Amino acid sequence: MTTVQFPRVTIIGLGHIGSSIARAVKELGLTSELVVTDGSPAIRQRATEIRLGDRVAETNAGAVKDSDLVIVCVPVGNLGKVAAEIAPHLKAGAIVSDVGSVKGPVAREMAEHLPKTVHFVPAHPVAGTEDSGPDSGFAELFIDRWCILTPLPDADAAAVERLATLWRTIGANVETMTPDHHDLVLAVTSHLPHLIAYTIVGTADELENVTEAEVLKFSAGGFRDFTRIAASDPTMWRDIFLANKDAVLEMLGTFQEDLSKLTRAIRRGDGEALFDHFTRTRAIRRGIVNLGQDAAGANFGRPHGQLPPKKD
Amino acid sequence: MTTVQFPRVTIIGLGHIGSSIARAVKELGLTSELVVTDGSPAIRQRATEIRLGDRVAETNAGAVKDSDLVIVCVPVGNLGKVAAEIAPHLKAGAIVSDVGSVKGPVAREMAEHLPKTVHFVPAHPVAGTEDSGPDSGFAELFIDRWCILTPLPDADAAAVERLATLWRTIGANVETMTPDHHDLVLAVTSHLPHLIAYTIVGTADELENVTEAEVLKFSAGGFRDFTRIAASDPTMWRDIFLANKDAVLEMLGTFQEDLSKLTRAIRRGDGEALFDHFTRTRAIRRGIVNLGQDAAGANFGRPHGQLPPKKD
Repeated sequence: MTTVQFPRVTIIGLGHIGSSIARAVKELGLTSELVVTDGSPAIRQRATEIRLGDRVAETNAGAVKDSDLVIVCVPVGNLGKVAAEIAPHLKAGAIVSDVGSVKGPVAREMAEHLPKTVHFVPAHPVAGTEDSGPDSGFAELFIDRWCILTPLPDADAAAVERLATLWRTIGANVETMTPDHHDLVLAVTSHLPHLIAYTIVGTADELENVTEAEVLKFSAGGFRDFTRIAASDPTMWRDIFLANKDAVLEMLGTFQEDLSKLTRAIRRGDGEALFDHFTRTRAIRRGIVNLGQDAAGANFGRPHGQLPPKKD
Repeated sequence: MTTVQFPRVTIIGLGHIGSSIARAVKELGLTSELVVTDGSPAIRQRATEIRLGDRVAETNAGAVKDSDLVIVCVPVGNLGKVAAEIAPHLKAGAIVSDVGSVKGPVAREMAEHLPKTVHFVPAHPVAGTEDSGPDSGFAELFIDRWCILTPLPDADAAAVERLATLWRTIGANVETMTPDHHDLVLAVTSHLPHLIAYTIVGTADELENVTEAEVLKFSAGGFRDFTRIAASDPTMWRDIFLANKDAVLEMLGTFQEDLSKLTRAIRRGDGEALFDHFTRTRAIRRGIVNLGQDAAGANFGRPHGQLPPKKD
């Protein structure tokens, strides 16, 4: 059973994450009035059609008026701009948060614009699919996923706890860490994997001796697993790599060293080194499945067809 | 409706692929007698318990006696040895095939051992999950997956067609190409992705400033997609990289160049180059889904939980 936690909630940016939060908050009745808006007139129009909020505001400034909780769900590169835009219109005592995948530089930029009368609590739900846009969201997206809060040193503990409660209510597990540590952790668990996936999918598309049709046809050998995350929203990911440049370049350096080691083992025919490495990585998969961060079903539980009947 | 295609079929090697073929052939009644065997006594014992074949043979030599079709499903590094072992015991006119993920050097090695009285038709079903062993197989594994046949220049067309018919009957689409072209295609669609996944999962495990617990917890950001294929059978993959060394090193060179380009774009803050690249890769994912080589469901259709009821 859930109950109203904030009399008025505003969500700015109605993509995959913003529209999922809107659905969850509305479905659970966590606010008396849900106000939503987006920079794109077409998306505001769509939000009206599918009734994403109780009210669709025309402007960010109008949307945050008298709101008790404002969650800004725009690409990382626009967070500073939106913070500046809404700052003069925020109600005193309001909580302002975001869902950006990079926290250090972005949180500092937002904090500079926001008035001292509001509580700013940066957040990052580690959830999402490769889909984008207001129609792709769903209320259950955050269930059993982590939401990382990265409060700044002067944060109000009660405000942090109120935001944490909202995230827990919509299904997430909440963890708190510093913005800069968040950026290192996500560089390895999210940003580097995306960069590698984007690279290999691009590589496969450009080969001279293997056609694109062949790559697509025989992708079940492993390649297709990379294409899911390489289909993620381009604007969102451009902004992430630009904002978290230092941590990504650091992780990339370590990855390059490790790739060189495995490459050398292949070139020298060192089967033992390969075998040892491959045995170690198998255990890591098991850890992720045991923690409930992925399904145990073989092949991601991809469905298989039926065989025809046997002749008697 | 299916019918007997080979009076006697032998399967050597009862891992994920071998045991799946055994199940499919038996379930569809494609042979009057299915003989199975494996180099490991424990696996032969298990095959007897779960009745994988009509008969479990103690030796490879005994298993192929009077057989009309012999499919060798052992790791690539053992194919030559098994070919030498069974060669003197094969029935004249029998078809001999394999399921190895590398074809050029391996097919030539097997061909050297096999007598001229049998028809050798190398094959590679591009299917499988990250699971291994006789219990992990299932009859539907090959449905809507590709099976690539790589007959040598002197192959008997009728024998190739009989083998193709068997693969089609158990659900696969059949494609034919030269062994060397196969190895290039698979280097990019399968071997390079596995190598990259093995690398990045290893990298994440060794960092100083991010703990393994953090990597596992926040893996939903993208990392977990890589762990599935990095959990594949270590022996099988060691053999693949050793056998397909040249093609893998060639693809790795191209991948490294592309990764350098994206790294440079991040370092220079070139958002336009990143955006253009990410937009292109998105289209490739769509191609794979359209060809039926992956499910369209967002997030691989990973299941989500339910929200609690709302308070009235």
